Amino acid sequence: MSQQTKKPLGVLQKAINKQVSVRLKSEIEYRGRMANCDPYMNVILLDAGEYNTGTLSANYGKVVIRGNNVLFIKIENEI
Amino acid sequence: MSQQTKKPLGVLQKAINKQVSVRLKSEIEYRGRMANCDPYMNVILLDAGEYNTGTLSANYGKVVIRGNNVLFIKIENEI
Amino acid sequence: MSQQTKKPLGVLQKAINKQVSVRLKSEIEYRGRMANCDPYMNVILLDAGEYNTGTLSANYGKVVIRGNNVLFIKIENEI
Amino acid sequence: MSQQTKKPLGVLQKAINKQVSVRLKSEIEYRGRMANCDPYMNVILLDAGEYNTGTLSANYGKVVIRGNNVLFIKIENEI
Amino acid sequence: MSQQTKKPLGVLQKAINKQVSVRLKSEIEYRGRMANCDPYMNVILLDAGEYNTGTLSANYGKVVIRGNNVLFIKIENEI
Amino acid sequence: MSQQTKKPLGVLQKAINKQVSVRLKSEIEYRGRMANCDPYMNVILLDAGEYNTGTLSANYGKVVIRGNNVLFIKIENEI
Amino acid sequence: MSQQTKKPLGVLQKAINKQVSVRLKSEIEYRGRMANCDPYMNVILLDAGEYNTGTLSANYGKVVIRGNNVLFIKIENEI
Repeated sequence: MSQQTKKPLGVLQKAINKQVSVRLKSEIEYRGRMANCDPYMNVILLDAGEYNTGTLSANYGKVVIRGNNVLFIKIENEI
Repeated sequence: MSQQTKKPLGVLQKAINKQVSVRLKSEIEYRGRMANCDPYMNVILLDAGEYNTGTLSANYGKVVIRGNNVLFIKIENEI
Repeated sequence: MSQQTKKPLGVLQKAINKQVSVRLKSEIEYRGRMANCDPYMNVILLDAGEYNTGTLSANYGKVVIRGNNVLFIKIENEI
Repeated sequence: MSQQTKKPLGVLQKAINKQVSVRLKSEIEYRGRMANCDPYMNVILLDAGEYNTGTLSANYGKVVIRGNNVLFIKIENEI
Repeated sequence: MSQQTKKPLGVLQKAINKQVSVRLKSEIEYRGRMANCDPYMNVILLDAGEYNTGTLSANYGKVVIRGNNVLFIKIENEI
Repeated sequence: MSQQTKKPLGVLQKAINKQVSVRLKSEIEYRGRMANCDPYMNVILLDAGEYNTGTLSANYGKVVIRGNNVLFIKIENEI
Repeated sequence: MSQQTKKPLGVLQKAINKQVSVRLKSEIEYRGRMANCDPYMNVILLDAGEYNTGTLSANYGKVVIRGNNVLFIKIENEI
């Protein structure tokens, strides 16, 4: 329950090194390992795939996404 | 009546752990339990469904929505 | 005349608990009792109706509208 | 000439209680008596008419317009 | 050459009382005498004409343009 | 190499009095001598041409471009 | 692993003088050597190519991109 009382930016910090999906306002989605992020929601993704309406359209080794474009960040379940 | 004099951000804080519907500017809606939020209206939703014009289009275990995209947050009635 | 010299945000504070219509940039309008608001024009509406070009399209028990979406807030006359 | 050296926000302050036309980015225009305004260009209009491409489309007793939507404010000549 | 080393906002201050053309993001242009302006590029125009793709569409005795809509301000040559 | 370690705004300062092309978000481009600029990327252009998809569409003796519209500023090579 | 714990803006600083691809919100992409950048994500690119849906459409010797237009910055692998 202590986890649930974390603020949104704290939850993102805790998700560092996990797999995430970053949906942008343009509806394009980037999936990869979140190497880091900051309070503005600038995000570094490693080994990222770009998905356009669900279809993989490009691959990125290391990409820095500017936070103001982010719609949401989905944190993938650990398996 | 003390409840009604809370400021909007205070009302959101009081709704933590309740079911909410978050409508975005894109008109897409996310419904789930609001694990937390902050003054910028960044929101963490758990067990969230994505609704596109009322139809469930995706499920999210844990998602952080960036506040600047939020149109409104509807707080569901306790049952 | 003292009323007319209030600043816009002061007029909104004075309208708390009154019926208001909140028009958003998307042209959708929400009408209900304004439980509270803040200087950013974040607004809490109670027993709100959503109107799309004048037609009621949904009802909301309690909704927090994010201020940056607001076009204007019309304060209804007391009857 | 002292009038012409006022800054834009000072000119607006001086126009309080005068008839103004507030054109929004959406091109819709609101005409009425400006009861007050603030440096963000939030405006209170009394007895306002809404004009859509020049045609009166609605009347508002008291309306608070959020400043970020304002394109310009035309100050009507005293008659 | 001292003139050329002025900063953009200083150049605008120096253009007070000159004829200017204010082009907005909407591509509509307002031409008139700039009575004053501020660092946000809020502008007061006197005896202004509104031009839509080069054609005069309206006249304004005194208008305050909100700076965030400005694309550019052209300073007319003295004659 | 000292030049290459300048920050972006420092590079712009160093380009004062050079020929530049200022591309706006609207894709329209203004080419002229940059008389000055500031950290917000407000720019003064002298003897500027307006280019719409590469074609000269207007000339401006002195124009102040508001920085928030700027997409990029290309610094022309000295010849 | 120390590299992976850098914040996004630190990762960009570390990429100075490397080849990057800067994707803008307009979906146009600029590829070149990043001479420098700042926390707002203003970027200087040298010997840059402009790519429109993957096709080279223009070349730029030295261009300063305003940060607010940036969607993401992809850092190319060293070879």
